[in-house]
Amino acid sequence: MAKRKSIGIAICGLGNVGGETARLLRSRKAELSARLGAPVHLRWVVSRHASTAARKLGLPASVKRAKTPKAALNDPAVDVVVELFGGLDAARRLVLDAFAAGKHVVTANKHLVSERFEELDRAARKARRGLAFEAAVAGGIPIIGAIRDGLAANRVERIVGIFNGTTNYILSKMAHEGCEMNSALAEAQALGMAERDPTMDINGMDAAHKIAILGSMLSGHWVPPRKIAREGIERVEAEDVRFAVERLGHTVRLLGTVAPAKKGTAVEAHVQPTLVPLKHPLAAVHGGYNAVLIQASSAEDLMFYGKGAGPGPTASAILADVLHVSQANQRQPAFNLRGQAKIRPEAQAPYYLKLRVADVPGALSGITGKLGKEGISIAQIFQNERGGRSVPVMILTHKTSREKLDRAIRGVLKLKTVSRRHSRLRLLPDDNA
Amino acid sequence: MAKRKSIGIAICGLGNVGGETARLLRSRKAELSARLGAPVHLRWVVSRHASTAARKLGLPASVKRAKTPKAALNDPAVDVVVELFGGLDAARRLVLDAFAAGKHVVTANKHLVSERFEELDRAARKARRGLAFEAAVAGGIPIIGAIRDGLAANRVERIVGIFNGTTNYILSKMAHEGCEMNSALAEAQALGMAERDPTMDINGMDAAHKIAILGSMLSGHWVPPRKIAREGIERVEAEDVRFAVERLGHTVRLLGTVAPAKKGTAVEAHVQPTLVPLKHPLAAVHGGYNAVLIQASSAEDLMFYGKGAGPGPTASAILADVLHVSQANQRQPAFNLRGQAKIRPEAQAPYYLKLRVADVPGALSGITGKLGKEGISIAQIFQNERGGRSVPVMILTHKTSREKLDRAIRGVLKLKTVSRRHSRLRLLPDDNA
Repeated sequence: MAKRKSIGIAICGLGNVGGETARLLRSRKAELSARLGAPVHLRWVVSRHASTAARKLGLPASVKRAKTPKAALNDPAVDVVVELFGGLDAARRLVLDAFAAGKHVVTANKHLVSERFEELDRAARKARRGLAFEAAVAGGIPIIGAIRDGLAANRVERIVGIFNGTTNYILSKMAHEGCEMNSALAEAQALGMAERDPTMDINGMDAAHKIAILGSMLSGHWVPPRKIAREGIERVEAEDVRFAVERLGHTVRLLGTVAPAKKGTAVEAHVQPTLVPLKHPLAAVHGGYNAVLIQASSAEDLMFYGKGAGPGPTASAILADVLHVSQANQRQPAFNLRGQAKIRPEAQAPYYLKLRVADVPGALSGITGKLGKEGISIAQIFQNERGGRSVPVMILTHKTSREKLDRAIRGVLKLKTVSRRHSRLRLLPDDNA
Repeated sequence: MAKRKSIGIAICGLGNVGGETARLLRSRKAELSARLGAPVHLRWVVSRHASTAARKLGLPASVKRAKTPKAALNDPAVDVVVELFGGLDAARRLVLDAFAAGKHVVTANKHLVSERFEELDRAARKARRGLAFEAAVAGGIPIIGAIRDGLAANRVERIVGIFNGTTNYILSKMAHEGCEMNSALAEAQALGMAERDPTMDINGMDAAHKIAILGSMLSGHWVPPRKIAREGIERVEAEDVRFAVERLGHTVRLLGTVAPAKKGTAVEAHVQPTLVPLKHPLAAVHGGYNAVLIQASSAEDLMFYGKGAGPGPTASAILADVLHVSQANQRQPAFNLRGQAKIRPEAQAPYYLKLRVADVPGALSGITGKLGKEGISIAQIFQNERGGRSVPVMILTHKTSREKLDRAIRGVLKLKTVSRRHSRLRLLPDDNA
């Protein structure tokens, strides 16, 4: 085999993650070069404030700086472009231009990859270059690599996971301290665990992006994130979490699920707050951690757990990708998406439903009647507190479809004895465990 | 890049794992060939009963059969030899002969790799061929690949894990059902979860083999398994497990630990039954599962969880290795062991100590005196039951060295008021969490 030439890297975007990637690339240069069998060089940093940022990072003069990626893309010494611009438009432009210039691309941008997977994959194939995004799913956990390499002999049948650290921090805090969502969120923001605008975390969209990427990989068909049935943690109340822990031996986790059909283009994909038994490994995932449970045809059940965000874990994943694209067989890009997947919601699950009900005779039978009308059978009803104008009633159903449950809830909420404020949580089905 | 020729495989050893590897290799042939960019062929099966076994597996006539590996090693169409003979001598011979014949080697043999790592690594280097053993550590969990590829930008600072499914099954059963070790073991044997001779599982030697392999990989120096400080689960009693769960909020796990020093050849390595807080992710690992917690310099804390044994998980790991050695840069074998590591026991840990003590005045002060003499300070003492000739006394110490504790225990057991039967369990130190 011919001796390999050196591998040149351009880092585009020098925020916390880009800075840490540059630092780590330089501090682990010897080990990374030994692994590749070729010296690895940071050639360019690209950022609006590249000069200032490079000075702060103590980068040597041999690392060129630019405000736009053009010169880096034209530099034949650059083999891999690391896209850390973030957002959609500028990042997409950069990735497409990089492929057009014959570079491999590594990105941490889950929004971009999930929304534009087909287009980016096509560009990578056309350019015969690698596209890698380990950092886009579950941060520092090497989950994409595990599916691609470690589980290469398996069909991955189902992935269930905690893909968003912010909401997991909030749900953990609600369980441990009994506080409401908003106060847990405020504390997460004060600690830098949540963004100033946490909408995409709280409403489950961030988790849906990651589920979309995994679903596209597993099925070979693009899973558009907007088509994923999705519910966030907006309506989870402290009372629900307390009841789950104390009375049901469960805790609440925001779970993303993806399961491709054995044949064809159908993919089950959804994001839902879910009651998980306290003994289940996903219940032991606390704070800002992510965890990914994989059902594989031969390796059986696996779980991967780790930090879902942060400069160190993200830079670790980015550099694993830099090695991967530099080594990979260039005739064989990793993905080969063929059109769009048919997204399906979950067929059936048991549910927890909390209603506030006037404490009058017959109130309960009105509710059970509406559920029965949709063919929903009840596993348990809890009605403990008494007194006051309305009392909370907790109902556990047997397996039912979300559609039937929603129809039944609409019926229930029309009852005069039931207040509009309610919670609904999925219970983890046995076959997901 | 030149089009690659096909990759030929010889499977040596056709027990449950070899049979499943042959079956999986054939059923996933298209996917594995696509990943490699070259067709993968099973060329040989080698076993004393190769013909019968091959017939039972429905292998086509194109797969050659032999009672000894000689012809397979001489066949230029064979690129990768899968060693599944088991044991030490015949397996070692096969691996060395395979390298001498210019083949890559994949093995699931933790005993062989841990005892002969230096010799095998030297032979691989000399032959410029790959040596891979994903299945030897934590079965179907792709942990070796994760350390090698996914965490390539990290220094792995510490690994703590559950590496033996048999003892984890026994400890889980003791915690859930309150039974003693021997009855849990008998049930594990009846279910095929434990071998007929479970000595190497129960006494921690199997876990020590895996720790030795990981320690050698992380430090670059051979860690001989026999030098690893090791205690099995022989002395863990139902009473200890019950007390741990009910009074301490902990459970018992047999943990293997390895932590290479930042520089030099020192490696901390030990296997010990350990009290783990119930909220800790390792406490959520039940039954025959394995789990590996990794502290990495950039990715931070990670955990990998899955089936530690069984034909499916093992075959999955073996085929991941077949892909790896077929793809790897052949000038760069993965290991480069340079002499022997200096194995160190754990510096300090807190301990749980259970003694049976005559219920007479002054008995406790005799015990605390012996502990104090060794400079061991006591965090808590529990003495609940009263009456009878002797009562159990549970003592939790602050951090101390194992050496001091052993000396103190020898002193305590000389006291007339203390019976010889006792238990001792390490508590997971905070910095391991």
